Amino acid sequence: MSGNGSPTLPLTPATNFVVESSSGLIIPETRDGFYGYTDEKSLQQMEEQKWAQRRASDVAHPQADSTLSNSFKLSSIREALQIQTTEELHPSPFSDDEDKEQVSDAQHHMDAMMTPELARVVQSFQKCLELRDKYITKSLQRLGDNPRDHDGVFHGVTEGLADVSGVKPDVNQSSAASANSPHEPWVIYPPPPPPHWHFTAKETVISADGRLTPDNEFDFSQCQIPSNHEWVFEIDDKGVYQVYTNADAGTKKPLFDIPTIREYFVDLDYVLGVISDGPAKSMAYRRLKYLASKFEMYSLLNESQELADMKSVPHRDFYNVRKVDTHVHLASCMNQKHLLRFIKSKMKRSPHDVVIFRDGTDLTLEQVFQSLKLSAYDLSINTLDMHAHQDSFHRFDKFNLKYNPIGESRLREIFLKIDNKIDGRYFAEITREVMNDVEQSKYQNCEWRVSIYGRSVDEWDKLAKWIIKNELFSHNVRWLIQVPRLYQVYKETGAIDTFEEIVINVFRPLFEVTKDPQSHPELHVFLQRVVGFDSVDDESKAERRFHRKFPFPRLWDSQQNPPFSYWMYYMYANTASLNHWRKARGFNTFVFRPHAGEAGDTDHLTAAFLTSHSISHGILLRKVPALQYLFYLKQIGLAMSPLSNNALFLTYERNPLPDFFKVGLNVSLSTDDPLQFHFTKEPLLEEYSVAAHIYKLPQSSLAELARNSVIQSGFEMEIKRHWLGQEWYLPGAAGNDIHKTNVPNLRLAYRHRTLLEELAMIRKQHSA
Amino acid sequence: MSGNGSPTLPLTPATNFVVESSSGLIIPETRDGFYGYTDEKSLQQMEEQKWAQRRASDVAHPQADSTLSNSFKLSSIREALQIQTTEELHPSPFSDDEDKEQVSDAQHHMDAMMTPELARVVQSFQKCLELRDKYITKSLQRLGDNPRDHDGVFHGVTEGLADVSGVKPDVNQSSAASANSPHEPWVIYPPPPPPHWHFTAKETVISADGRLTPDNEFDFSQCQIPSNHEWVFEIDDKGVYQVYTNADAGTKKPLFDIPTIREYFVDLDYVLGVISDGPAKSMAYRRLKYLASKFEMYSLLNESQELADMKSVPHRDFYNVRKVDTHVHLASCMNQKHLLRFIKSKMKRSPHDVVIFRDGTDLTLEQVFQSLKLSAYDLSINTLDMHAHQDSFHRFDKFNLKYNPIGESRLREIFLKIDNKIDGRYFAEITREVMNDVEQSKYQNCEWRVSIYGRSVDEWDKLAKWIIKNELFSHNVRWLIQVPRLYQVYKETGAIDTFEEIVINVFRPLFEVTKDPQSHPELHVFLQRVVGFDSVDDESKAERRFHRKFPFPRLWDSQQNPPFSYWMYYMYANTASLNHWRKARGFNTFVFRPHAGEAGDTDHLTAAFLTSHSISHGILLRKVPALQYLFYLKQIGLAMSPLSNNALFLTYERNPLPDFFKVGLNVSLSTDDPLQFHFTKEPLLEEYSVAAHIYKLPQSSLAELARNSVIQSGFEMEIKRHWLGQEWYLPGAAGNDIHKTNVPNLRLAYRHRTLLEELAMIRKQHSA
Repeated sequence: MSGNGSPTLPLTPATNFVVESSSGLIIPETRDGFYGYTDEKSLQQMEEQKWAQRRASDVAHPQADSTLSNSFKLSSIREALQIQTTEELHPSPFSDDEDKEQVSDAQHHMDAMMTPELARVVQSFQKCLELRDKYITKSLQRLGDNPRDHDGVFHGVTEGLADVSGVKPDVNQSSAASANSPHEPWVIYPPPPPPHWHFTAKETVISADGRLTPDNEFDFSQCQIPSNHEWVFEIDDKGVYQVYTNADAGTKKPLFDIPTIREYFVDLDYVLGVISDGPAKSMAYRRLKYLASKFEMYSLLNESQELADMKSVPHRDFYNVRKVDTHVHLASCMNQKHLLRFIKSKMKRSPHDVVIFRDGTDLTLEQVFQSLKLSAYDLSINTLDMHAHQDSFHRFDKFNLKYNPIGESRLREIFLKIDNKIDGRYFAEITREVMNDVEQSKYQNCEWRVSIYGRSVDEWDKLAKWIIKNELFSHNVRWLIQVPRLYQVYKETGAIDTFEEIVINVFRPLFEVTKDPQSHPELHVFLQRVVGFDSVDDESKAERRFHRKFPFPRLWDSQQNPPFSYWMYYMYANTASLNHWRKARGFNTFVFRPHAGEAGDTDHLTAAFLTSHSISHGILLRKVPALQYLFYLKQIGLAMSPLSNNALFLTYERNPLPDFFKVGLNVSLSTDDPLQFHFTKEPLLEEYSVAAHIYKLPQSSLAELARNSVIQSGFEMEIKRHWLGQEWYLPGAAGNDIHKTNVPNLRLAYRHRTLLEELAMIRKQHSA
Repeated sequence: MSGNGSPTLPLTPATNFVVESSSGLIIPETRDGFYGYTDEKSLQQMEEQKWAQRRASDVAHPQADSTLSNSFKLSSIREALQIQTTEELHPSPFSDDEDKEQVSDAQHHMDAMMTPELARVVQSFQKCLELRDKYITKSLQRLGDNPRDHDGVFHGVTEGLADVSGVKPDVNQSSAASANSPHEPWVIYPPPPPPHWHFTAKETVISADGRLTPDNEFDFSQCQIPSNHEWVFEIDDKGVYQVYTNADAGTKKPLFDIPTIREYFVDLDYVLGVISDGPAKSMAYRRLKYLASKFEMYSLLNESQELADMKSVPHRDFYNVRKVDTHVHLASCMNQKHLLRFIKSKMKRSPHDVVIFRDGTDLTLEQVFQSLKLSAYDLSINTLDMHAHQDSFHRFDKFNLKYNPIGESRLREIFLKIDNKIDGRYFAEITREVMNDVEQSKYQNCEWRVSIYGRSVDEWDKLAKWIIKNELFSHNVRWLIQVPRLYQVYKETGAIDTFEEIVINVFRPLFEVTKDPQSHPELHVFLQRVVGFDSVDDESKAERRFHRKFPFPRLWDSQQNPPFSYWMYYMYANTASLNHWRKARGFNTFVFRPHAGEAGDTDHLTAAFLTSHSISHGILLRKVPALQYLFYLKQIGLAMSPLSNNALFLTYERNPLPDFFKVGLNVSLSTDDPLQFHFTKEPLLEEYSVAAHIYKLPQSSLAELARNSVIQSGFEMEIKRHWLGQEWYLPGAAGNDIHKTNVPNLRLAYRHRTLLEELAMIRKQHSA
């Protein structure tokens, strides 16, 4: 474990502490020598170097410069703290001397207050963090795990991982890899991006093979589709797809080490035990309070300096920092006025389109509206009735019905479905219109969630063909696949027999296309724009308790829906298996970003803590302080949508977003469903605007939220580099380029040091 | 007083109860026979007739229809009330039988609870209402007082008013008047609109004489400017302009009866006494609580019916009901992004424009920015620094500085001033751009406030020439003149000696142009688009108390600014005098719509209660229940701006707007300063959106707020007719056209009956 000297030392992740957060930011390890440049010392060096460069380039702004050299004005915070308390009672966590001294300062403080009970709590927290590391590592959800992260400049922090899976890189690419990086010996895997990974920040439409067609338009026929791979795959009797080499296929010895469902539930149980432990809750609650107060103190003392720093940056402001709408559903990505206008124009211009087959006959659009007794003129936002404000609070069931225009499922089918009589043409057209709007706004980007239900095995091909045929690619848009947890519905209608069928319908096409992309060429191309998976449904539904005697999927034929935690596992485990194979082939991998903690039980958030790159909502973390603290320590991304919550679960002013933000959780703002919630033509700006008004967020905090949203997103390394700064993945101010993000370095330095102290406290106790 | 039979009986308003509210809505009198169709009985008939028509036209919607015939579903409210209380204790205020019975029902209830103390309180309220009537009547601020109200269809409710002033209508117009209305004998004055009042709802630009120029553009040379009038005017020794006939000029017997400042302060004192009286406060508080609860009950029982009614209306919805931004300042009518873009484009395209004279030299735009050490690229929202969120709370002084881009008064002078080196050309250009945006949105309209400071007597001409030269006319825009209360500033700089000079500078040009429009032809044309006056400044400044021994304006030479109430009087009295003359000439009159109750003392709101058509803000009414109750009874318009308050005086969730709305106050939503407060391209929609989200307002309430905004506004009769319905000025459902307003009839019927009951209670006690 004397890492520095021997960077190629094989490490098995289950026993080693992994230093990155799945959010994409590297969280440095305080122990010595682990990964090449992420140990404490070299990080400090890098940060200092970065600052020196910044200082050199900032000579034009002497005011800002003088502050930067003033150790982020932290001395004044120390002074302020000294006024209120004695140094003995509350030694300042800040220091304007040396980082080394500072961290030990903080540790002395922790040591003093540490009782045996607290030491036990801290150790249990440490165990929880390690458990998460295990799951995230084994599913390749860390920064650098995705071959696409490696853009020829970034070479990863994933040294040694090849040994986890025992997999060697594709033979035809490994030579290029080693040729490319002679000077970074610790990067042995994965290879630099193959040519078909070329995503740039400039073009709005890129052909799938990365080459721009002459008129800069997508041309499917030009896409290079790789050929068959020798490995084979099969779903095991526990419902997880496993991959085998040809040789091993007989012995059934899987290539990849995926945690079993038994292991998962044992670990889940452990974390649930920790976060419901009295002393753990109490300690976490106090740490969170402390962090929030500390941020308030920081803000009061530094707001004018932050503003001065931001003003000294030319050109950049709230409107032209990049924002990603990290959580928005495709079927509600347009606002209500847009959908209304679209429906009206269709009724006017294409009344004779045959759009639906009902009751034995084909109906034209005109006939459909005749049957509804409506003309184009009659239609209004009120008749459309898709806004969810008055009658949907605590009525998620009602909210789901809001997806039906005029309460008519046939209109939803015609206008908002992919698999219909017109092959989703209308839906594609309005999607293209929204894409154009987003592209025009330039700085706004979206990650749209589109459904795969798992009801039949051809859903993937239909979706992919729809995307390809309608050329629904945009530089401003990436995709997530949402799998609704609707087992009981399909079971009731007889569409499926066992839960295993859902697993098969969702994952088999993905393994097929990974083994042989030419078997589903459209899907292969589409998947290059897919960044991850989501799991969605009404979390507030009651769940049957099985006391962990869960049948395996092939035996799950009850009328009951499996509980949230069970769904999580099968999404996780199969994605993990898939990711290993895709990585081995140099294809992009996927992260898991489910809805969790919008409502329902604590185990939803706990399952997400173990399995998920980041989550949507998470508002219930406010009721589980220990889990919230763990989310903080791991900087797990929360894509929050307070306007959505306001309509469904929690009034705006009670939303924990501002508290989470103060504590330092990795929070971003997203719209969820502009069709149901938003009024203006710019739903994401509306979301920021309301937050700014009601939570009184200053420009610096809006910029930090926007930066968080880019980091949480699945946009490619090269694009993030362009949007946030060349080394955006470095922690604290070192990773920041204020000229791009508009976030004051002061702010990120504060965030980083504060996090370091919390981690130091926990690790010290653990190793003690 | 047996009105019905003798409609031409002269009445002096000071002793007669006036039945309209200055807001433009007629509040019907419950006493018998006063004005032709505004007595209770004929109003009921009209309402019933209206409903019968609606019912006939609604046969296509049987569901809605069945409810309408069900007496607005009020029987179910009665049932609900009966469940909770016994009929004896709380006789239901509703009845599905007869209105007559219903009102007496309510009165019985009031009678039962009426103690001698309450009777005295009610009588004092009645006296306050009559005082307001006196002031509003004497200043011609009621609906129908403005010649422009008379569009050939509406013939007014102002019978008998000719006798107030002793003025006869212009000779050349009175014959047309009587010829026009042979069947409405009670309309003897004013005449139908002369030809140059032709404002239509269709054209965006109208020539001042009402004739459209060939290309539908404004052409000043085509405007007809009336000639000199024989009357003369002079400021009296109490600081009020008086008008005399030529014959009376020697005797100094004024033509018009304007309340003196002494009378005003006596009346003001009376109202102040009433609203600070313990029992009055307590009773009003209880009535307000009762009204709010009643509305909640109404909402819970009728929300689905309201929604059904709204859905049955074709086409109309929140987006295409007309909204007026009833309170927005010209210098901040654009959002920050717009101003930034404008400044950048000027720096790029016109760097060599000579824009300012400073320190003895003319400077080009380029030189100005060189002196600021800024390039076009450097500029951002942050450097502009005009948003007021963080540092302006309870700092109105700081807020005022936010009008300076980059904190530089020279940029404000170049870009946001009319009277500068470039004759306000830049300001006109950006104003035109905002006008274009508003016109494009079609359903959004503004009333912009532009300053006359009263520092010099040529301000009016400069402003009018600026407007005319730059053709700043738009169908979607009307103007208000705001007079900042800055006496002490001009006094200090020596610009003026006494307060009288401000009165002269503000009002003399107006009297000149009314006497002889050809003396200021541009001003005459501009004034046709001006709907009223405003009075603005930081209300939270401390005011010196003079114990009502105020010197007259010509003697006011102290360094102290006169108090708010004193300013109010002089704005009021001079406007009143001016209005009488303008009306006599057939020119449009002005209403007084000051800022009041944003901060400061209770006497601000009390002075506004007496003198003002409507007000901006009024948030402090929440602390003065008796005054709030009086504002309710008189339906005085409140143009509220909760996002502005949120940045300056009161956080959003504590804003009383939702409570006021429940009670039934005449509330509208406005932006105040989009430049300082709003984020999106559609500031008025942003204002509605945040209110909808945070206050959880349903579509019906948004529509009611929008309707209120139109009613409060100064848009012309013909336009309001087009926007709200042919007889929009009738109270309750009778005045509503849901096909235009999208407000359910149910809602307005509820509002109206509730108001009737409150008025009935007060009047019964008064006459008892």
